[in-house]
Amino acid sequence: MRQPDPLDRASPDPSRLSLNTATVKQQWTLAQAIDGCARHGIRGIAPWRDKVAELGLKKSVSLIKNHDLTVTGLCRGGFFTARDWLDDNRRAIEEAHALEADCLVLVVGGLPAGSKDLAHARDRVRECIARILPEARQAGVPLAIEPLHPMQAADRACVNTLEQALDICDVLGEGIGIAVDVYHVWWDPKLEQQIKRAGRKRILGYHICDWLVPTRDLLNDRGMMGDGVIDLPRIRGWVEAAGYAGMHEVEIFSESDWWKRDPDEVLKTCVERHGSCT
Amino acid sequence: MRQPDPLDRASPDPSRLSLNTATVKQQWTLAQAIDGCARHGIRGIAPWRDKVAELGLKKSVSLIKNHDLTVTGLCRGGFFTARDWLDDNRRAIEEAHALEADCLVLVVGGLPAGSKDLAHARDRVRECIARILPEARQAGVPLAIEPLHPMQAADRACVNTLEQALDICDVLGEGIGIAVDVYHVWWDPKLEQQIKRAGRKRILGYHICDWLVPTRDLLNDRGMMGDGVIDLPRIRGWVEAAGYAGMHEVEIFSESDWWKRDPDEVLKTCVERHGSCT
Repeated sequence: MRQPDPLDRASPDPSRLSLNTATVKQQWTLAQAIDGCARHGIRGIAPWRDKVAELGLKKSVSLIKNHDLTVTGLCRGGFFTARDWLDDNRRAIEEAHALEADCLVLVVGGLPAGSKDLAHARDRVRECIARILPEARQAGVPLAIEPLHPMQAADRACVNTLEQALDICDVLGEGIGIAVDVYHVWWDPKLEQQIKRAGRKRILGYHICDWLVPTRDLLNDRGMMGDGVIDLPRIRGWVEAAGYAGMHEVEIFSESDWWKRDPDEVLKTCVERHGSCT
Repeated sequence: MRQPDPLDRASPDPSRLSLNTATVKQQWTLAQAIDGCARHGIRGIAPWRDKVAELGLKKSVSLIKNHDLTVTGLCRGGFFTARDWLDDNRRAIEEAHALEADCLVLVVGGLPAGSKDLAHARDRVRECIARILPEARQAGVPLAIEPLHPMQAADRACVNTLEQALDICDVLGEGIGIAVDVYHVWWDPKLEQQIKRAGRKRILGYHICDWLVPTRDLLNDRGMMGDGVIDLPRIRGWVEAAGYAGMHEVEIFSESDWWKRDPDEVLKTCVERHGSCT
């Protein structure tokens, strides 16, 4: 038998919990989510841009400041397959700047309509990021490539492993890194190695939830921490050993479960499970 | 724009088509599938063991011989998480030997019940294969590790990339290789590189179907060749360039579509699409 890793057992600091607003997207506006975070002692938030737009950017900035929340990321830039990708990413950079977000999360887009050429789609992603990167640097907004699970390669993101994302970072230089979302990368045989490779400099965000068995939907059936099979303490150990000192952002897409519950119950559970299961 | 690869355009030899019986598992017994192959000019077959058991091993061997079909693989050994894995894999090796199968396909199993320790599960897979490999060599049955899609890591196979499978092969030596199933590996940024690494010696099987967008189920929503986004001619080009000269085995799990159709229509479509889309 293996020796248990001491890192597996120490609970994380509760002040490092952050709420990605997708977790309560069906129930709450951004204003309600900000209030919810305050009520439950959650110190960080990662808003989606549609929620920011709904509330208004200025109002969003001031409410988040009033509650002294850290913005662990803005979701999302990327989708370089969209016709207006350049303008849209420029706006996203401006918004992330205004919100003082730790990073702008890039979900890079999948195959262009009608194409089967993954290699070409991937080349294009690198080129598009190179195009927006100078403006992001100028604005002081780090860009975080989020590799998505391979089951989303066709329709959401053709960057599917940390190794692939870090290869892109190596080519592009400063001002770019990765978001490590356990849901997308937990299965990767090279996960520990690539987290180590990324190091403090490249790890811009750490997202948590769980992988359910069975999983009934490719997009919206994520589990609450502790309800699935991901070894969250171990992965956190790797991320921390690599030097990551940022927050732990809960992001749960859950059509048939958490999106149907009382959002205060959802946040209460996030807080509890962050302490006991991650 | 890229130059189209000449390999993308030459149709494959129709005599290289093989039918994995899973493609018509809801409609036909093995005897019916053998007859179906004969009617449609399909020269290879890959039976599942439950179908062999139902017909009887001797009868299966003699019907397949009578129709002069190549057995491109026996599905399946592996599932090292099962209590009786050793006996079961020994029986599978004997059956593959009797059927003169090109290989015994190994679906290695996911996480043991209650475990979140993927690294341990993976170590165990390597140890279990090492245990059965001498008997497989003795019987002249090559073992083919089939990496499954990462979305099946928890419940079906914790070997999820060609790189990982080939690393295991390198440790274990002779008598073991991989089955390249496009459904499981099409997304992999290292696919071309790892197919090249595998070469003629390690590629024991090549399985085709397609990835549908959207995919509605993690297990049983595979597409017919041409109905999805996998660049099948390109991948076949890589496999052939690596020296693979074996058959192209169609394996489609399709609860809501192909398993509901007239099986003769399914086989007719397989033959047509093999010629026009792969």
